[in-house]
Amino acid sequence: MKFEPRIVLVNTSHPGNIGAAARAMKTMGLSSLYLVAPKLFPHVKADEMASGALDVLGNAKVVAHLDEAIADCQLIAGTSARHRTIPWPLMTPREFVEKSPHVFHKTAILFGREQSGLTNEELQRCHVHIHIPCNSEYSSLNLAAAVQIIAYELQIAKNTELKPEWDYELATQEQMQLFYAQLEQLLIQIGFLKPEAPRQLMTRLRRLFNRAQVDSMEMNILRGILSAVEKYR
Amino acid sequence: MKFEPRIVLVNTSHPGNIGAAARAMKTMGLSSLYLVAPKLFPHVKADEMASGALDVLGNAKVVAHLDEAIADCQLIAGTSARHRTIPWPLMTPREFVEKSPHVFHKTAILFGREQSGLTNEELQRCHVHIHIPCNSEYSSLNLAAAVQIIAYELQIAKNTELKPEWDYELATQEQMQLFYAQLEQLLIQIGFLKPEAPRQLMTRLRRLFNRAQVDSMEMNILRGILSAVEKYR
Repeated sequence: MKFEPRIVLVNTSHPGNIGAAARAMKTMGLSSLYLVAPKLFPHVKADEMASGALDVLGNAKVVAHLDEAIADCQLIAGTSARHRTIPWPLMTPREFVEKSPHVFHKTAILFGREQSGLTNEELQRCHVHIHIPCNSEYSSLNLAAAVQIIAYELQIAKNTELKPEWDYELATQEQMQLFYAQLEQLLIQIGFLKPEAPRQLMTRLRRLFNRAQVDSMEMNILRGILSAVEKYR
Repeated sequence: MKFEPRIVLVNTSHPGNIGAAARAMKTMGLSSLYLVAPKLFPHVKADEMASGALDVLGNAKVVAHLDEAIADCQLIAGTSARHRTIPWPLMTPREFVEKSPHVFHKTAILFGREQSGLTNEELQRCHVHIHIPCNSEYSSLNLAAAVQIIAYELQIAKNTELKPEWDYELATQEQMQLFYAQLEQLLIQIGFLKPEAPRQLMTRLRRLFNRAQVDSMEMNILRGILSAVEKYR
Protein backbone atom coordinates (compact mmCIF):
# COMPACT_ATOMS: atom_id res chain seq x y z
CA MET A 1 0.00 0.00 0.00
CA LYS A 2 2.04 2.94 -1.25
CA PHE A 3 1.67 6.22 0.62
CA GLU A 4 1.10 8.84 -1.98
CA PRO A 5 -1.87 11.09 -1.38
CA ARG A 6 -2.26 13.59 -4.17
CA ILE A 7 -2.56 17.30 -3.52
CA VAL A 8 -4.78 19.02 -6.09
CA LEU A 9 -4.76 22.82 -6.27
CA VAL A 10 -7.71 24.12 -8.24
CA ASN A 11 -7.45 27.35 -10.21
CA THR A 12 -4.82 28.94 -8.00
CA SER A 13 -4.29 32.68 -8.61
CA HIS A 14 -0.87 33.32 -7.06
CA PRO A 15 2.09 31.26 -8.26
CA GLY A 16 3.86 31.98 -4.97
CA ASN A 17 1.17 29.93 -3.23
CA ILE A 18 1.84 27.00 -5.55
CA GLY A 19 5.53 27.11 -4.68
CA ALA A 20 4.85 27.43 -0.95
CA ALA A 21 2.42 24.51 -1.16
CA ALA A 22 5.12 22.38 -2.86
CA ARG A 23 7.51 23.22 -0.03
CA ALA A 24 4.88 22.39 2.59
CA MET A 25 4.25 19.04 0.89
CA LYS A 26 7.89 18.08 0.70
CA THR A 27 8.55 18.84 4.37
CA MET A 28 5.94 16.19 5.14
CA GLY A 29 7.11 13.67 2.57
CA LEU A 30 4.45 14.28 -0.09
CA SER A 31 5.37 14.69 -3.74
CA SER A 32 2.31 14.22 -5.95
CA LEU A 33 1.00 17.64 -6.98
CA TYR A 34 -1.70 18.36 -9.55
CA LEU A 35 -2.55 21.86 -10.71
CA VAL A 36 -5.96 22.39 -12.27
CA ALA A 37 -5.92 25.43 -14.58
CA PRO A 38 -3.50 27.54 -12.55
CA LYS A 39 -3.59 31.24 -13.47
CA LEU A 40 0.20 31.60 -13.73
CA PHE A 41 2.42 28.56 -13.94
CA PRO A 42 5.29 27.94 -14.29
CA HIS A 43 6.43 31.21 -12.74
CA VAL A 44 9.54 32.57 -11.05
CA LYS A 45 7.52 33.34 -7.91
CA ALA A 46 6.53 29.69 -7.61
CA ASP A 47 10.17 28.62 -7.89
CA GLU A 48 11.22 31.16 -5.26
CA MET A 49 8.65 30.05 -2.72
CA ALA A 50 9.29 26.36 -3.36
CA SER A 51 12.78 26.77 -1.91
CA GLY A 52 14.26 23.26 -1.81
CA ALA A 53 11.11 21.65 -3.23
CA LEU A 54 11.75 22.46 -6.89
CA ASP A 55 11.50 18.75 -7.67
CA VAL A 56 7.91 18.63 -6.44
CA LEU A 57 7.13 21.69 -8.53
CA GLY A 58 8.91 20.29 -11.58
CA ASN A 59 6.95 17.05 -11.39
CA ALA A 60 3.60 18.79 -10.89
CA LYS A 61 0.99 17.81 -13.46
CA VAL A 62 -0.97 20.67 -14.99
CA VAL A 63 -4.44 19.75 -16.23
CA ALA A 64 -7.33 21.75 -17.62
CA HIS A 65 -10.19 20.26 -15.64
CA LEU A 66 -10.58 18.78 -12.19
CA ASP A 67 -11.81 15.47 -13.57
CA GLU A 68 -8.44 14.86 -15.22
CA ALA A 69 -6.74 15.29 -11.87
CA ILE A 70 -8.87 12.78 -10.02
CA ALA A 71 -10.07 10.23 -12.61
CA ASP A 72 -7.78 7.48 -11.31
CA CYS A 73 -8.29 8.38 -7.63
CA GLN A 74 -10.40 6.43 -5.19
CA LEU A 75 -10.92 8.67 -2.20
CA ILE A 76 -11.60 12.35 -2.86
CA ALA A 77 -11.61 14.91 -0.08
CA GLY A 78 -12.27 18.61 -0.55
CA THR A 79 -11.16 21.31 1.84
CA SER A 80 -13.97 23.67 2.58
CA ALA A 81 -14.49 26.66 4.82
CA ARG A 82 -18.08 27.42 4.00
CA HIS A 83 -21.35 25.83 4.88
CA ARG A 84 -23.32 24.48 1.97
CA THR A 85 -27.00 24.33 1.28
CA ILE A 86 -26.87 20.55 1.35
CA PRO A 87 -24.60 19.40 4.15
CA TRP A 88 -21.93 16.91 3.13
CA PRO A 89 -20.01 14.53 5.40
CA LEU A 90 -17.62 16.88 7.16
CA MET A 91 -14.46 15.94 9.05
CA THR A 92 -11.56 17.68 10.64
CA PRO A 93 -8.17 16.80 9.14
CA ARG A 94 -7.49 14.58 12.15
CA GLU A 95 -10.79 12.73 11.84
CA PHE A 96 -10.08 12.26 8.15
CA VAL A 97 -6.72 10.56 8.66
CA GLU A 98 -7.82 8.63 11.73
CA LYS A 99 -11.22 7.39 10.65
CA SER A 100 -10.96 6.65 6.99
CA PRO A 101 -9.74 3.11 6.29
CA HIS A 102 -8.99 4.20 2.73
CA VAL A 103 -6.89 7.24 3.46
CA PHE A 104 -3.71 5.72 2.07
CA HIS A 105 -5.24 4.35 -1.08
CA LYS A 106 -5.35 6.59 -4.10
CA THR A 107 -6.40 9.69 -2.27
CA ALA A 108 -6.75 13.18 -3.67
CA ILE A 109 -7.20 16.22 -1.48
CA LEU A 110 -8.58 19.26 -3.23
CA PHE A 111 -7.77 22.86 -2.38
CA GLY A 112 -9.82 25.60 -4.00
CA ARG A 113 -9.22 29.15 -5.12
CA GLU A 114 -7.63 31.63 -2.71
CA GLN A 115 -10.70 33.85 -2.64
CA SER A 116 -13.64 31.57 -3.26
CA GLY A 117 -12.56 28.00 -2.51
CA LEU A 118 -14.11 25.09 -4.38
CA THR A 119 -17.34 25.38 -6.33
CA ASN A 120 -20.38 23.36 -5.37
CA GLU A 121 -19.84 21.18 -8.41
CA GLU A 122 -16.28 20.47 -7.35
CA LEU A 123 -17.31 19.79 -3.77
CA GLN A 124 -19.87 17.31 -4.98
CA ARG A 125 -17.06 15.26 -6.51
CA CYS A 126 -15.88 14.54 -2.98
CA HIS A 127 -16.55 11.68 -0.62
CA VAL A 128 -15.91 13.92 2.31
CA HIS A 129 -15.26 17.55 3.07
CA ILE A 130 -12.44 18.55 5.35
CA HIS A 131 -12.72 21.60 7.53
CA ILE A 132 -9.63 22.82 9.36
CA PRO A 133 -10.77 24.00 12.79
CA CYS A 134 -9.92 27.66 13.13
CA ASN A 135 -10.85 31.02 14.56
CA SER A 136 -14.47 31.65 13.62
CA GLU A 137 -13.77 35.38 13.45
CA TYR A 138 -10.78 35.00 11.14
CA SER A 139 -10.60 31.77 9.23
CA SER A 140 -8.51 33.06 6.34
CA LEU A 141 -5.83 30.40 6.17
CA ASN A 142 -3.25 30.93 3.49
CA LEU A 143 -3.49 28.21 0.82
CA ALA A 144 -0.03 26.82 1.58
CA ALA A 145 -0.79 26.91 5.31
CA ALA A 146 -3.85 24.74 4.71
CA VAL A 147 -1.75 22.32 2.64
CA GLN A 148 0.83 22.31 5.44
CA ILE A 149 -1.72 21.29 8.06
CA ILE A 150 -3.25 18.51 5.98
CA ALA A 151 0.19 17.19 4.98
CA TYR A 152 1.26 17.30 8.61
CA GLU A 153 -1.71 15.18 9.67
CA LEU A 154 -1.10 12.69 6.88
CA GLN A 155 2.52 12.40 7.92
CA ILE A 156 1.58 11.69 11.53
CA ALA A 157 -1.02 9.11 10.55
CA LYS A 158 1.52 7.43 8.31
CA ASN A 159 4.06 7.24 11.10
CA THR A 160 1.83 6.23 13.95
CA GLU A 161 -0.54 3.55 12.78
CA LEU A 162 -1.50 1.18 10.09
CA LYS A 163 -4.94 1.64 8.67
CA PRO A 164 -7.19 -1.42 8.68
CA GLU A 165 -7.23 -3.12 5.30
CA TRP A 166 -10.42 -3.24 3.30
CA ASP A 167 -11.29 -6.35 1.32
CA TYR A 168 -11.71 -4.41 -1.95
CA GLU A 169 -10.23 -1.19 -3.16
CA LEU A 170 -12.45 1.83 -3.50
CA ALA A 171 -14.01 2.44 -6.87
CA THR A 172 -12.08 4.97 -8.91
CA GLN A 173 -13.47 8.41 -9.51
CA GLU A 174 -13.84 7.57 -13.19
CA GLN A 175 -16.00 4.56 -12.34
CA MET A 176 -18.08 6.73 -10.01
CA GLN A 177 -18.65 9.30 -12.76
CA LEU A 178 -19.67 6.60 -15.24
CA PHE A 179 -22.03 5.23 -12.63
CA TYR A 180 -23.61 8.65 -11.95
CA ALA A 181 -23.99 9.27 -15.68
CA GLN A 182 -25.67 5.90 -16.18
CA LEU A 183 -27.85 6.45 -13.15
CA GLU A 184 -28.96 9.90 -14.28
CA GLN A 185 -29.79 8.63 -17.76
CA LEU A 186 -31.78 5.81 -16.29
CA LEU A 187 -33.67 8.08 -13.92
CA ILE A 188 -34.62 10.32 -16.82
CA GLN A 189 -35.47 7.31 -18.88
CA ILE A 190 -37.80 5.94 -16.26
CA GLY A 191 -39.39 9.35 -15.75
CA PHE A 192 -38.20 9.81 -12.19
CA LEU A 193 -35.90 12.73 -12.98
CA LYS A 194 -37.37 15.57 -14.99
CA PRO A 195 -34.56 17.35 -16.83
CA GLU A 196 -36.60 20.56 -16.82
CA ALA A 197 -36.98 20.40 -13.00
CA PRO A 198 -34.01 18.40 -11.68
CA ARG A 199 -34.07 20.01 -8.25
CA GLN A 200 -31.25 18.56 -6.09
CA LEU A 201 -31.85 14.95 -6.94
CA MET A 202 -28.47 14.05 -8.46
CA THR A 203 -26.69 16.09 -5.81
CA ARG A 204 -28.32 14.07 -3.09
CA LEU A 205 -27.55 10.81 -4.83
CA ARG A 206 -23.92 11.82 -5.27
CA ARG A 207 -23.71 12.64 -1.61
CA LEU A 208 -25.22 9.34 -0.66
CA PHE A 209 -22.89 7.15 -2.71
CA ASN A 210 -19.84 9.28 -2.06
CA ARG A 211 -20.50 9.15 1.65
CA ALA A 212 -20.72 5.39 1.45
CA GLN A 213 -17.25 5.22 -0.12
CA VAL A 214 -18.25 2.57 -2.59
CA ASP A 215 -15.66 -0.14 -3.21
CA SER A 216 -14.94 -1.74 -6.59
CA MET A 217 -16.97 -4.88 -5.90
CA GLU A 218 -20.01 -2.84 -4.82
CA MET A 219 -19.59 -0.69 -7.90
CA ASN A 220 -19.80 -3.77 -10.11
CA ILE A 221 -23.02 -4.68 -8.37
CA LEU A 222 -24.52 -1.20 -8.71
CA ARG A 223 -23.63 -0.97 -12.38
CA GLY A 224 -25.03 -4.45 -12.86
CA ILE A 225 -28.32 -3.37 -11.32
CA LEU A 226 -28.57 -0.29 -13.54
CA SER A 227 -27.89 -2.38 -16.63
CA ALA A 228 -30.47 -4.92 -15.54
CA VAL A 229 -33.07 -2.17 -15.13
CA GLU A 230 -32.25 -0.76 -18.55
CA LYS A 231 -32.68 -4.15 -20.11
CA TYR A 232 -35.83 -4.88 -18.15
CA ARG A 233 -37.74 -2.23 -20.03
CA MET B 1 -7.33 30.04 33.07
CA LYS B 2 -7.00 32.32 30.09
CA PHE B 3 -5.85 30.79 26.84
CA GLU B 4 -3.10 33.00 25.61
CA PRO B 5 0.08 31.19 24.66
CA ARG B 6 2.72 33.62 23.49
CA ILE B 7 4.53 33.19 20.19
CA VAL B 8 8.12 34.46 20.36
CA LEU B 9 10.04 34.91 17.12
CA VAL B 10 13.75 35.28 17.74
CA ASN B 11 15.92 37.36 15.42
CA THR B 12 13.78 36.86 12.33
CA SER B 13 15.45 37.92 9.06
CA HIS B 14 12.50 38.29 6.70
CA PRO B 15 9.66 40.65 7.66
CA GLY B 16 7.34 38.69 5.35
CA ASN B 17 7.73 35.72 7.66
CA ILE B 18 6.68 37.84 10.64
CA GLY B 19 3.53 38.90 8.81
CA ALA B 20 2.74 35.36 7.69
CA ALA B 21 3.27 34.13 11.26
CA ALA B 22 0.81 36.75 12.54
CA ARG B 23 -1.76 35.54 10.02
CA ALA B 24 -1.16 31.91 10.99
CA MET B 25 -1.65 32.83 14.66
CA LYS B 26 -4.87 34.70 14.10
CA THR B 27 -6.45 31.89 12.09
CA MET B 28 -6.03 29.75 15.19
CA GLY B 29 -7.18 32.37 17.68
CA LEU B 30 -3.77 33.42 19.00
CA SER B 31 -2.83 37.08 19.38
CA SER B 32 0.19 37.45 21.64
CA LEU B 33 3.30 37.95 19.52
CA TYR B 34 6.77 38.92 20.74
CA LEU B 35 9.60 39.78 18.39
CA VAL B 36 13.12 39.51 19.74
CA ALA B 37 15.50 41.75 17.79
CA PRO B 38 13.85 41.33 14.37
CA LYS B 39 16.12 42.36 11.48
CA LEU B 40 13.47 44.49 9.75
CA PHE B 41 10.30 45.53 11.58
CA PRO B 42 7.92 47.20 11.06
CA HIS B 43 8.05 46.65 7.32
CA VAL B 44 5.64 46.79 4.40
CA LYS B 45 6.36 43.11 3.58
CA ALA B 46 5.19 42.13 7.06
CA ASP B 47 1.95 44.06 6.61
CA GLU B 48 1.34 42.48 3.20
CA MET B 49 1.79 38.93 4.43
CA ALA B 50 -0.28 39.54 7.57
CA SER B 51 -3.35 40.01 5.39
CA GLY B 52 -6.27 40.41 7.84
CA ALA B 53 -4.07 39.98 10.91
CA LEU B 54 -2.70 43.52 11.04
CA ASP B 55 -4.03 43.81 14.59
CA VAL B 56 -1.79 40.96 15.76
CA LEU B 57 1.14 42.62 14.03
CA GLY B 58 0.28 46.04 15.46
CA ASN B 59 0.13 44.67 18.99
CA ALA B 60 3.39 42.73 18.64
CA LYS B 61 5.95 43.59 21.29
CA VAL B 62 9.48 44.18 20.06
CA VAL B 63 12.21 43.50 22.61
CA ALA B 64 15.99 43.44 22.42
CA HIS B 65 16.70 40.22 24.27
CA LEU B 66 14.92 36.91 24.68
CA ASP B 67 14.79 37.26 28.46
CA GLU B 68 12.50 40.30 28.13
CA ALA B 69 10.08 38.24 26.09
CA ILE B 70 9.77 35.41 28.57
CA ALA B 71 10.48 36.88 32.02
CA ASP B 72 6.84 36.63 33.12
CA CYS B 73 6.21 33.27 31.44
CA GLN B 74 5.91 29.97 33.23
CA LEU B 75 6.25 27.28 30.59
CA ILE B 76 8.85 27.81 27.88
CA ALA B 77 9.01 25.58 24.82
CA GLY B 78 11.53 25.94 22.04
CA THR B 79 11.06 24.62 18.54
CA SER B 80 14.11 22.77 17.37
CA ALA B 81 15.09 20.79 14.32
CA ARG B 82 18.59 19.79 15.30
CA HIS B 83 19.98 17.32 17.72
CA ARG B 84 22.01 18.78 20.55
CA THR B 85 25.07 17.57 22.36
CA ILE B 86 23.09 17.25 25.55
CA PRO B 87 19.65 15.85 24.83
CA TRP B 88 16.78 17.88 26.25
CA PRO B 89 13.21 16.68 26.85
CA LEU B 90 11.80 16.50 23.34
CA MET B 91 8.15 16.34 22.33
CA THR B 92 6.11 16.50 19.17
CA PRO B 93 3.63 19.41 19.05
CA ARG B 94 0.86 16.94 19.81
CA GLU B 95 2.61 15.46 22.81
CA PHE B 96 3.29 18.97 24.02
CA VAL B 97 -0.34 20.04 24.02
CA GLU B 98 -1.66 16.69 25.20
CA LYS B 99 0.78 15.85 27.95
CA SER B 100 1.65 19.11 29.59
CA PRO B 101 -0.80 20.06 32.34
CA HIS B 102 0.59 23.58 32.17
CA VAL B 103 0.18 24.20 28.49
CA PHE B 104 -2.46 26.85 28.95
CA HIS B 105 -0.73 28.74 31.71
CA LYS B 106 1.64 31.50 30.74
CA THR B 107 3.27 29.64 27.93
CA ALA B 108 5.83 30.95 25.47
CA ILE B 109 6.80 29.06 22.36
CA LEU B 110 10.07 30.13 20.81
CA PHE B 111 10.87 30.05 17.11
CA GLY B 112 14.44 30.67 16.02
CA ARG B 113 16.17 32.20 13.04
CA GLU B 114 15.20 31.09 9.53
CA GLN B 115 18.64 29.67 8.80
CA SER B 116 20.05 28.59 12.13
CA GLY B 117 17.17 28.21 14.59
CA LEU B 118 17.66 28.87 18.28
CA THR B 119 21.10 29.00 19.89
CA ASN B 120 22.08 26.53 22.56
CA GLU B 121 21.80 29.28 25.16
CA GLU B 122 18.26 30.05 24.03
CA LEU B 123 17.31 26.37 23.95
CA GLN B 124 18.56 25.99 27.51
CA ARG B 125 15.98 28.54 28.63
CA CYS B 126 13.31 26.00 27.72
CA HIS B 127 11.48 23.40 29.76
CA VAL B 128 10.94 21.34 26.69
CA HIS B 129 11.92 21.28 23.05
CA ILE B 130 9.33 20.73 20.38
CA HIS B 131 10.18 18.94 17.19
CA ILE B 132 7.66 18.95 14.36
CA PRO B 133 7.76 15.51 12.74
CA CYS B 134 8.75 15.91 9.12
CA ASN B 135 10.54 14.45 6.14
CA SER B 136 14.03 13.54 7.32
CA GLU B 137 15.39 14.30 3.85
CA TYR B 138 13.81 17.75 3.67
CA SER B 139 12.84 19.27 6.99
CA SER B 140 13.00 22.89 5.91
CA LEU B 141 9.68 24.15 7.22
CA ASN B 142 9.01 27.79 6.53
CA LEU B 143 8.91 29.79 9.79
CA ALA B 144 5.23 30.72 9.40
CA ALA B 145 4.40 27.11 8.51
CA ALA B 146 5.93 25.97 11.79
CA VAL B 147 3.94 28.61 13.67
CA GLN B 148 0.83 27.44 11.82
CA ILE B 149 1.27 23.84 12.93
CA ILE B 150 1.92 24.70 16.57
CA ALA B 151 -1.00 27.14 16.64
CA TYR B 152 -3.23 24.51 15.03
CA GLU B 153 -2.36 21.98 17.73
CA LEU B 154 -2.97 24.53 20.49
CA GLN B 155 -6.34 25.37 19.00
CA ILE B 156 -7.38 21.72 18.89
CA ALA B 157 -6.24 21.11 22.45
CA LYS B 158 -8.16 24.16 23.56
CA ASN B 159 -11.32 22.96 21.87
CA THR B 160 -11.23 19.31 22.76
CA GLU B 161 -10.26 18.96 26.36
CA LEU B 162 -9.62 20.67 29.61
CA LYS B 163 -6.18 20.23 30.98
CA PRO B 164 -5.94 18.88 34.52
CA GLU B 165 -5.44 21.67 37.03
CA TRP B 166 -2.24 21.83 39.00
CA ASP B 167 -2.32 22.89 42.63
CA TYR B 168 0.26 25.65 42.13
CA GLU B 169 1.18 27.66 39.13
CA LEU B 170 4.54 27.09 37.52
CA ALA B 171 7.37 29.31 38.65
CA THR B 172 7.94 32.22 36.29
CA GLN B 173 10.96 32.30 34.06
CA GLU B 174 12.29 35.25 36.04
CA GLN B 175 12.15 33.20 39.24
CA MET B 176 13.89 30.33 37.48
CA GLN B 177 16.71 32.61 36.31
CA LEU B 178 17.16 34.07 39.80
CA PHE B 179 17.25 30.55 41.13
CA TYR B 180 19.88 29.42 38.62
CA ALA B 181 22.00 32.49 39.34
CA GLN B 182 21.80 31.87 43.07
CA LEU B 183 22.55 28.21 42.58
CA GLU B 184 25.58 28.88 40.38
CA GLN B 185 26.98 31.39 42.87
CA LEU B 186 26.52 28.95 45.66
CA LEU B 187 28.17 26.11 43.75
CA ILE B 188 31.19 28.31 43.07
CA GLN B 189 31.16 29.47 46.65
CA ILE B 190 31.23 25.95 47.98
CA GLY B 191 33.96 24.96 45.52
CA PHE B 192 31.84 22.50 43.57
CA LEU B 193 31.81 24.51 40.37
CA LYS B 194 35.21 25.74 39.11
CA PRO B 195 34.64 28.86 36.98
CA GLU B 196 37.82 28.03 35.03
CA ALA B 197 36.48 24.54 34.18
CA PRO B 198 32.66 24.72 34.34
CA ARG B 199 32.15 21.83 31.92
CA GLN B 200 28.40 21.28 31.39
CA LEU B 201 27.39 21.47 35.01
CA MET B 202 24.96 24.39 34.87
CA THR B 203 23.55 23.14 31.60
CA ARG B 204 22.72 19.83 33.17
CA LEU B 205 21.17 21.49 36.21
CA ARG B 206 19.05 23.72 34.00
CA ARG B 207 17.84 20.72 32.08
CA LEU B 208 16.99 18.90 35.27
CA PHE B 209 14.93 21.67 36.84
CA ASN B 210 13.35 22.77 33.61
CA ARG B 211 12.34 19.23 32.83
CA ALA B 212 10.72 18.99 36.24
CA GLN B 213 8.55 22.03 35.47
CA VAL B 214 9.01 23.51 38.92
CA ASP B 215 5.92 25.11 40.41
CA SER B 216 5.92 28.27 42.51
CA MET B 217 5.67 26.46 45.83
CA GLU B 218 8.57 24.17 44.98
CA MET B 219 10.54 27.18 43.85
CA ASN B 220 10.07 28.79 47.27
CA ILE B 221 11.41 25.64 48.83
CA LEU B 222 14.44 25.46 46.52
CA ARG B 223 15.33 29.09 47.06
CA GLY B 224 14.85 28.56 50.78
CA ILE B 225 17.31 25.68 50.70
CA LEU B 226 19.93 27.70 48.81
CA SER B 227 19.61 30.55 51.27
CA ALA B 228 19.91 28.18 54.16
CA VAL B 229 23.11 26.71 52.71
CA GLU B 230 24.55 30.19 52.20
CA LYS B 231 23.84 31.08 55.78
CA TYR B 232 25.12 27.80 57.08
CA ARG B 233 28.69 28.55 56.10
